[in-house]
Order: sequence, then structure tokens, then C-alpha cells
Amino acid sequence: MKSSAELQNLLNEHIKDFLPDNDFKDVLLYSLIPAGKLFRPKLVHALAHDLGQLTQNHFYLASSLEVHHTYTLIHDDLPAMDNDDYRRGKLSSHKKFNEFKAILAGDALLNISFGLLSSIEHKSLNTLLKLYSEYTGAKGLILGQVLDLENSIHSIESILEIHTLKTARLIQLALEGSYLLTDSQIDQKIISNLGLAIGISFQLLDDLSELTEDINDHELKINPFINLNSKSLFTILNKNLDTIQQTLDEYNLNESSKIMNEYFFKMSKIIQDGEKEIQKRIQGFLFSNLKL
Amino acid sequence: MKSSAELQNLLNEHIKDFLPDNDFKDVLLYSLIPAGKLFRPKLVHALAHDLGQLTQNHFYLASSLEVHHTYTLIHDDLPAMDNDDYRRGKLSSHKKFNEFKAILAGDALLNISFGLLSSIEHKSLNTLLKLYSEYTGAKGLILGQVLDLENSIHSIESILEIHTLKTARLIQLALEGSYLLTDSQIDQKIISNLGLAIGISFQLLDDLSELTEDINDHELKINPFINLNSKSLFTILNKNLDTIQQTLDEYNLNESSKIMNEYFFKMSKIIQDGEKEIQKRIQGFLFSNLKL
Repeated sequence: MKSSAELQNLLNEHIKDFLPDNDFKDVLLYSLIPAGKLFRPKLVHALAHDLGQLTQNHFYLASSLEVHHTYTLIHDDLPAMDNDDYRRGKLSSHKKFNEFKAILAGDALLNISFGLLSSIEHKSLNTLLKLYSEYTGAKGLILGQVLDLENSIHSIESILEIHTLKTARLIQLALEGSYLLTDSQIDQKIISNLGLAIGISFQLLDDLSELTEDINDHELKINPFINLNSKSLFTILNKNLDTIQQTLDEYNLNESSKIMNEYFFKMSKIIQDGEKEIQKRIQGFLFSNLKL
Repeated sequence: MKSSAELQNLLNEHIKDFLPDNDFKDVLLYSLIPAGKLFRPKLVHALAHDLGQLTQNHFYLASSLEVHHTYTLIHDDLPAMDNDDYRRGKLSSHKKFNEFKAILAGDALLNISFGLLSSIEHKSLNTLLKLYSEYTGAKGLILGQVLDLENSIHSIESILEIHTLKTARLIQLALEGSYLLTDSQIDQKIISNLGLAIGISFQLLDDLSELTEDINDHELKINPFINLNSKSLFTILNKNLDTIQQTLDEYNLNESSKIMNEYFFKMSKIIQDGEKEIQKRIQGFLFSNLKL
């Protein structure tokens, strides 16, 4: 299995062909490097390994998903969207450069994410390209962004719909895409449901860790765990964690388990640190019930 | 050969699969329908016909390019970009809806344009996908948008660079993409140069017709034909028109010739109507020297 540094190096190598020879290159690289936790590339990699068929094709898909994820962050941060001045501890793209460069950098990375698929030599390329566009497009991730921005008050159902579209679809694409580039006989629906469960848990845990950070920074923003019946959200989170555990065990997806355990361990540390403070605000439920 | 209405119907049919079942669908369709002059789809179609191998694949490419072109217009019109309130005689997307919906509609159409390629069943799919991303991405069309917005004063060289990247690349893609989906033995470089010449002429004629309209509306904006040595631009225009004529003749590209003649006839009408007014402003060169 490749380390984060190796995955980052592969990404750098893969995108070279798509970058211009002028200042705009720096705008693109500013958001891409250093990468985030490379969660999606790691999942592509781990599942292919678990299915016994890790190939060069998987690394192109992994790079593509990281580039795609980065474009969504740049556009999410724009003034007309979430209007965030910071991302990953540094100025967001439109604050560092300007708004038109951030819009065009997002467009360029979205474009490159599809261009990277051109290096995939596999009979499933057509199927993968269709799934990619469906999961990330106007019926998938982008629709999630629209729904998220359309209303500031959400029900539990609408939170789950937004998390499904905006977060889970890209994680499902990592797993289903990785699967499509193997000859695995497992039902694709199993892989899809695993991706959905990981995506939902990932986003709910992210909401929880943000809550922790906000409490530590004494600046509590809107967070579904405060505004809604948080007991229901914990129940949903635990149900999804169960699905993940059962699927990983049943199909012996050991490398994928490692990626998930690494992530859950990190999240549980963050959340437990803020647990007491959070308990004061979330009534009727103890964090210790959360089976991380 | 299919009519504009038939090409529009095919486009409507092709994009159905990618559209969501809610209001966001209307945002996407607002900019797509009615389509513009469908110049790029018509070129795909005509060249494939001329090369004797018009297939279903070509119609997917044609639809893809129209969808892609539409995304560039939506993003070009944004306040942080050209800040245009109108497009094709109606409100631009961000004025009709709002800014975040226009950004996301552009993203969605960019995404769909790649998704449409998934229906292409041809050994050149990888090559086409690579070329598509290269010509429309950070080294191509998008770089043209960056350069266009970076400076308000341009030299003749920089105008030509911007026209090459921002306009010609997508027209080259229409022709080279169409060519790649046939077994033609013509050198791809010939097709590429034809696309470049069409792209440059197309944009210079568009600048001229805009100049005509601006004069009629008594609101003269920045236009390269006024600000620069217009004689040089006319010389360049004529040189490119020669290349187009010679290539179309030499390779018997008769349907492609029809598309170009149709376009040139329309443009010459617009330009001749405003000729006298323009002559007053552009010294030392007569429009009648323009060999349309």
C-alpha cells in the first residue's frame, strides 16, 4: 500500500500534462498542494487491493477524485456560495488570488478530473465515465450543493439528503469506481451501500468534530447536532457505523478497514476531547454511546 | 444532414439522463434552450458527413460541445467575470436566478458535457477525452478566459492568443473530435489548422459584427478593431479566410463548406449594413477588401 506522500507524488505526476506554463498554474497548485487527508484516493487504493486487483488505472481514478474534490472546495468557498475566507488553514482561493481566478481554477480542476480518466485503459471506462458524471453532477454532488444553499433550516431528512448527495456520492464513486476497474464478482450494490454508509458517517462525524472545534473557539455556528434532535442523528450515525463494520468484515476488506479505523480513531480523539463541553449542550445523549 | 431543430431535439434527448427532478433542472434548461446557432454541433456533423462516416457517436459529441459551450457562457457572464446582464436576448443565468445557481449550473453543464462522452463507443474514446480536456481546460479555453480577464489592454498578438484559446480550441475540438471518430486518413494537423482558421475568423467577424451593433445602438464599447491597427486585423482575417477556403476545396469538404458559407453570408449582411458607419471610424481600410 502506498503512503499519503506517495499518493500525493502520483497526483503531482498525473496532473503535469494538464497544467499551463504560466501564473495560472500557481492558482491551481495552491489549492491542490498540500492535499487534504487524501481520504478518497486512499479508499480507491485500499478497495482495489482488497479485491486483489490494484492496477495503474486505480491511481488515475484516485488522482482524479482528489482533483475533483478540490474543485468543489474552491467553488464552495466563493462569496456567492459559503463565503469562506479560509480553507485547510490558509486563505481560500478567491481571497489569495481573486474571484474570477477562483471560479476558473475550479472549472479547470473539474475539467482535469475528467481528463485524468483518459489514461484509464479498461473495458469499463464508458460505465465509469457515466457513473462519474451522474454521481458528481446535477443529480448528485452539485444538486447537494444547490439544496444546501437553498435553505438555511433543514429537517433531519433534508440533512441526510444533502449529506448523501454532497458527501456520500463522491465516496461511493471512489469505491464503485475502484470496483468497476476490477473483475470482482461482489454485487455492486453492496459496494455502493458501503460507500453511502461511509459518506453519511464521514459527514456526521465531521459535523460533530466541527461542533467540538467551535465550542473550543467559543464561536458556535449553525450545526445540525445542536439545532435538531441530536439523538436521532446519533442513532443514524450508529446505524451507518454498523453497516460499515459488517460489510468490511463479511467481505474481508482489510485494507479498507485500516483506512476507516485510522479515520475513526482520529475523529474519536477530536470528539472525545470536546465531549464534556458538548454534553452540556446536547441533552439526553452521551457520547460514550457512540460506537467508534 | 440534420436541421438545427433536429440537432436541438437530439440534444434534448441526450441530456435527459443527466437532469434532476426538481427546480434546478429549469436553471440548466433556461441556458440550454433555445440553443444558439449550434455552430459547433453543425461542424461535427458536417465534417463527419464529408469524411463519409457520420455515426451515432458524432451526435453525442455534437451535444456535448453545445452543452460545454453553454457552460462557458454562463460563467463568462458572472459578476466576477464579464458581468453581463443579458445573453442571447434574455437575462443571463445569474440575473434570472441567482449567482450561486449560475455558478452551479455552469459546473453541472461542464460536468454533463463530459458525461455525454460516455455514450461514445469507439476505440478513440481515450484520445478524444484527453484532447477534450486539453483544449477546453487550463491550457486551452479556460486559460483564454484567464488571459482575457487579466488585462484590459491587448496587443494584436495577445488578442490572437486569446481568440485561439477561448474561441478556436472548441471549434478545433469539434473538427478534430469528429475526425477522431472516423477512420479518415487525412493528417489530423490539416483538420486542426482548419479549425484554428475557422475559430480565429469566427471571433474576428464576431468582433466586427459587435462593432456594427454597438454603432447602431450608439453605445460603442472596447473593440479590438477600434483600439488597434485594424488593418493588421483585417489582413489576419483574410489570411485565415484563405486557409479555410483552400482546405475545404482541396479535401472536398462540401457539407462543411455549406455551414461556413451560411455563416459567412449572415455575417457579411450584418457587417455590410453597418459598413459606412464603421468606415468613418476605421481609417485606411475598406470593408469591400474583405473577401467574404
